[in-house]
Amino acid sequence: MERIDDLQRNGLKIIQDTGRFCFGMDAVLLSGFAKAKPGEKVLDMGTGTGILPLLMSAKTDAEHFFALEIQPESADMARRSVAMNSLEEKIDIVTGDLKEASRIFGRASFDVVTVNPPYMTAGHGEMNPGDAKAIARHEILCTLEDVVREAAAVLKTNGRLYMVHKPFRLAEIIAVMQKYKLEPKGLRVVYPYADKEPNMVLVAAVKGGRSGIKIEAPLIIYEEKDVYTEEIKRDYGF
Amino acid sequence: MERIDDLQRNGLKIIQDTGRFCFGMDAVLLSGFAKAKPGEKVLDMGTGTGILPLLMSAKTDAEHFFALEIQPESADMARRSVAMNSLEEKIDIVTGDLKEASRIFGRASFDVVTVNPPYMTAGHGEMNPGDAKAIARHEILCTLEDVVREAAAVLKTNGRLYMVHKPFRLAEIIAVMQKYKLEPKGLRVVYPYADKEPNMVLVAAVKGGRSGIKIEAPLIIYEEKDVYTEEIKRDYGF
Repeated sequence: MERIDDLQRNGLKIIQDTGRFCFGMDAVLLSGFAKAKPGEKVLDMGTGTGILPLLMSAKTDAEHFFALEIQPESADMARRSVAMNSLEEKIDIVTGDLKEASRIFGRASFDVVTVNPPYMTAGHGEMNPGDAKAIARHEILCTLEDVVREAAAVLKTNGRLYMVHKPFRLAEIIAVMQKYKLEPKGLRVVYPYADKEPNMVLVAAVKGGRSGIKIEAPLIIYEEKDVYTEEIKRDYGF
Repeated sequence: MERIDDLQRNGLKIIQDTGRFCFGMDAVLLSGFAKAKPGEKVLDMGTGTGILPLLMSAKTDAEHFFALEIQPESADMARRSVAMNSLEEKIDIVTGDLKEASRIFGRASFDVVTVNPPYMTAGHGEMNPGDAKAIARHEILCTLEDVVREAAAVLKTNGRLYMVHKPFRLAEIIAVMQKYKLEPKGLRVVYPYADKEPNMVLVAAVKGGRSGIKIEAPLIIYEEKDVYTEEIKRDYGF
């Protein structure tokens, strides 16, 4: 069933469907980790209901956002959310396959790419391959390498890729990025609690960048059970 | 000037020279991160004054430790520390170049390798290339690739490498490890404070391991200025 959620930011709202895929904290954290400067063009690959460009339109001064989504129902919801927020001049939702991104948009055409890709390899855990949630979570329609290869192709030299992913794939992410000349330059590890293993990593890479990665301060979500840390409350509106 | 320091562990003592290189918290943290099981053979590459095998002889049930050190004065201090602690049956200090490790000890001869290598590339920052401290801190006598290549050569299949290094080189470390079939399987990021950037990374790799890395809970050093966290006090005797 569709519902309209308040994004707690500049009065933004988003249309989601609880039977399909609803955005999670990962997308919200990525929207704060990703940086875009005035005049820059941003592509969100696999945008789902458009959460990334919606939030980044409020948080950054980027000039324009394109957002690519393969599932027509999700793309339609994203397009209606953009209209509901009167952001049609700023955000374009394109229905299409991210594996075709460089063909659709052209090579070296973006300053910034954001992506919240499927985390699990196909066949990992239970899933229904036709299900919208499964497509968002498992590498059914695209692999990590597809994502990185296309991001590298659409980015200009010195353009930045911002990705959120699961910690267990960090070594693979770094290897694949380097294969496509996207040098990992930034890493923020997201820990649910200060004494627990992380559940997300935020990775920034620069096309053609030099070796050397800056690991940021830990991003800790909860002070204690049900109590968000000050940073999460202050910067993300939780 | 030489002095004898108490290691706060099983009555262990170590001989150091304040004019040369004294061990730091990095070596102590690596001694807790590295695991060695009963019957295993461990090599510490570039042991300095022998801090790693001394601490690991107390913390693990490894059968035997070899420790390689290129600087004769440091190796001599390490050897005297081993004797002072009556650990001659357990720890052998070998004077030699870690770039020759596989020639000295033979290929596939160790279950575990530990290394606290020079962090800085040669020529990075001020240094005196003949100085013992510079040799310990800068890649004057060996590079990261030398260290990883030799570690891979002396490790048995499924043997583990444990390394402490600086965060800014993490992407390079992962790439070089993978080049030599040492799959990064564990990572612990060490933050001086819960809201500050890390100053060390502890990396574990398995020779011939499958892809997939486990990032551990953050290791935070200080609760506040001059006050160690409970974990540091409890597990490391600070």
